[in-house]
Amino acid sequence: MLQSKLFTKTRREAPKDELAKNAELLIRAGFIHKEMAGVYSYLPLGWRVIQKIISIVREEMNAIGGQEIELSALQEKGVWEKTGRWDDQVVDNWFKTKLKNETEVGLAYTHEAAMAELMKDHVSSYRDLPSYPYQFQMKFRNELRSKSGLFRGREFLMKDLYSFNKTTEELDLFYEEAIKTYRKIFDRLNIGDSTYLTLASGGAFGTDYSHEFQTLTAAGEDTIYLSKEKKMAINKEVMNEKALKMLKISEKELTEERAVEVGNIYKLGDFYSRPLGLTYTTEEGNEQAVIMGSYGIGISRLMGTIVEVFADDKGIVWPESVAPFKIHLVYLTGNDKVKAYADKLYGDLVGRNIEVLYDDRDLRAGEKFQDSDLMGIPYRIIVSDKTLESGRLEMKERKSGEVKMISEEELLSGKLN
Amino acid sequence: MLQSKLFTKTRREAPKDELAKNAELLIRAGFIHKEMAGVYSYLPLGWRVIQKIISIVREEMNAIGGQEIELSALQEKGVWEKTGRWDDQVVDNWFKTKLKNETEVGLAYTHEAAMAELMKDHVSSYRDLPSYPYQFQMKFRNELRSKSGLFRGREFLMKDLYSFNKTTEELDLFYEEAIKTYRKIFDRLNIGDSTYLTLASGGAFGTDYSHEFQTLTAAGEDTIYLSKEKKMAINKEVMNEKALKMLKISEKELTEERAVEVGNIYKLGDFYSRPLGLTYTTEEGNEQAVIMGSYGIGISRLMGTIVEVFADDKGIVWPESVAPFKIHLVYLTGNDKVKAYADKLYGDLVGRNIEVLYDDRDLRAGEKFQDSDLMGIPYRIIVSDKTLESGRLEMKERKSGEVKMISEEELLSGKLN
Repeated sequence: MLQSKLFTKTRREAPKDELAKNAELLIRAGFIHKEMAGVYSYLPLGWRVIQKIISIVREEMNAIGGQEIELSALQEKGVWEKTGRWDDQVVDNWFKTKLKNETEVGLAYTHEAAMAELMKDHVSSYRDLPSYPYQFQMKFRNELRSKSGLFRGREFLMKDLYSFNKTTEELDLFYEEAIKTYRKIFDRLNIGDSTYLTLASGGAFGTDYSHEFQTLTAAGEDTIYLSKEKKMAINKEVMNEKALKMLKISEKELTEERAVEVGNIYKLGDFYSRPLGLTYTTEEGNEQAVIMGSYGIGISRLMGTIVEVFADDKGIVWPESVAPFKIHLVYLTGNDKVKAYADKLYGDLVGRNIEVLYDDRDLRAGEKFQDSDLMGIPYRIIVSDKTLESGRLEMKERKSGEVKMISEEELLSGKLN
Repeated sequence: MLQSKLFTKTRREAPKDELAKNAELLIRAGFIHKEMAGVYSYLPLGWRVIQKIISIVREEMNAIGGQEIELSALQEKGVWEKTGRWDDQVVDNWFKTKLKNETEVGLAYTHEAAMAELMKDHVSSYRDLPSYPYQFQMKFRNELRSKSGLFRGREFLMKDLYSFNKTTEELDLFYEEAIKTYRKIFDRLNIGDSTYLTLASGGAFGTDYSHEFQTLTAAGEDTIYLSKEKKMAINKEVMNEKALKMLKISEKELTEERAVEVGNIYKLGDFYSRPLGLTYTTEEGNEQAVIMGSYGIGISRLMGTIVEVFADDKGIVWPESVAPFKIHLVYLTGNDKVKAYADKLYGDLVGRNIEVLYDDRDLRAGEKFQDSDLMGIPYRIIVSDKTLESGRLEMKERKSGEVKMISEEELLSGKLN
């Protein structure tokens, strides 16, 4: 993409009303736009990052048998009433609105009930199970406060998968598979090293515990107790003797840390299926409630998390797997040959499907470098009088700041690290 | 994909509460689920169709300089008040809700105002124009009635592009380019022949006319006056002497037709940019309002339209460009070799990236064929005792019903028509 055509602009100053580093940097770099507290729009560069995260998660969901769907945001009151979760006293972050005929409808903050209701049309026999539908969908949560940028959205993008199993044993097996898959996802997003499976509250769903994936960051809203060595963590909300005993760990081995929840997995059992009447006939001819689980990943929150984890004082640092572009090609104003060469190099990169943002703007070098550092594309390639003379290209890795001279062939091979 | 794993089921009976053929067939075939009138969820097959439509539209939007973004559904009251479009007396299909602190917010029924407000951060000089952001996004419209299935959604998927130009001349050029691009899109969706550029009302935006793309179908909610020969149409709402004179056509040449609006393009001028203060400095140093246009395509409505246009008495008929799969591989219960051969053929097709749904279920042939006809995948390949004996495969084209025997090589080449 030509940077001269990119409609967004960077800005030097932090937006006045933004307290969170993740949103501040993403706004300054032109990746997102703040509509109101907790509500952001995604601009071309930000939407590319989101699409990269989605691709990775989608691949891994498909690999464990997930089938992609898209549920509506508008949800019927009746379905939620049956599971006792319509009342604002029970679920305090509903956005509700009304149809013209005064019928109340909700804006889904999650989809367990809708999903269970839907499955009644498709599940009747043991032969119809298991199944694992999932979606990437905007969720709405009427948060009292929303000061952490993409960490706490009133409208945010989530991946939610729901498991429908015959038995709790079948659920348990899938649950373990989901844990492995989640680890793989966080590894692919480069935050695997700082993300821990964490024992958390089971919520209202009749099980003692659930699990969260918590990524360490000072900006996180959660407190966890962590043993890095044993790769074990407990959310503060369930930190007690019972939890310690279950994990066979002593309090002394744990340190208190700030973290952000990037994923969660719940065993729901028949919490939703029983009141909604989602049952199936077993091989022996008995009618049983379907056993459910739910598996969330905060897609937009992950974008914010990656920013918080890797950013430095110059700006954002994207891991290659989610960067909006792999290469930031920057030409420095010089003689005519420089621009002509950079134009040709850009064409060659595009021709090889190497993702490149080309800063073709007629600006001072300093300004271009500042923008480039702020935007955080992994590899910056500089074309200038000097490099043209040397017959090589200057490459700067954003993460390490390391500079080396490479050949055009090396660049076009796409293997830079 | 293995049909035995697909979690959705077909059904023989029409859903009782569904009046529209498009939704009825899509529900029966397991492509969508009805949440409430005008609100549908997309199941795996339906979501695949939507993704195909999106891909085609995205390619064409990028080809004319579009940059993909994603705006929030929650919208601030203030922005819409400035353009006089918050009041329910002016815009009668708002869904509104409230933040915890009682601040009213709207669920976007369109994004002109939000988009213009956003661009104020990125446009200041003539150098920043033109630009063409677009998105695929769920829109919310509080329709009084919603009885036409995917034709009139209370929540529906739309592609909306917004043009920001320096002058009305520049807008006019882009507007013509958009018309050409829209024609290309409808051609690629196979409805080009039955879709007509139609003169329509300019709405509240200070221009006399806008243009719609109307696809002929008895199920359409609009009435247009059409000359097929001259490829000209006028929406009933603006059918008068002035319109006829403008198009240089006489009333006698036109026939009254039912149609559905699948796209629309508007010249907005400074309707939004002036009250919101979206201006730029010209090359001569003058401050001017940015000239806007908007360009919609109803993505989910298109899925319904394609169903209405092509369906026959057996079910849906997908054009290849948007079909959830290209091939429906069906094995008929016979000796062991049949299933083993079909399994291998499925693997070979997948290995060649040919999209195939494999009906590997142990069911009667009649049941499988009924499902296959209902689902509408373009090419059905039958593997049976008989075909195995003959050394060839039976291929039935869904559209024409034509049956021919082809070789495995022909099938694996992917060129079937």
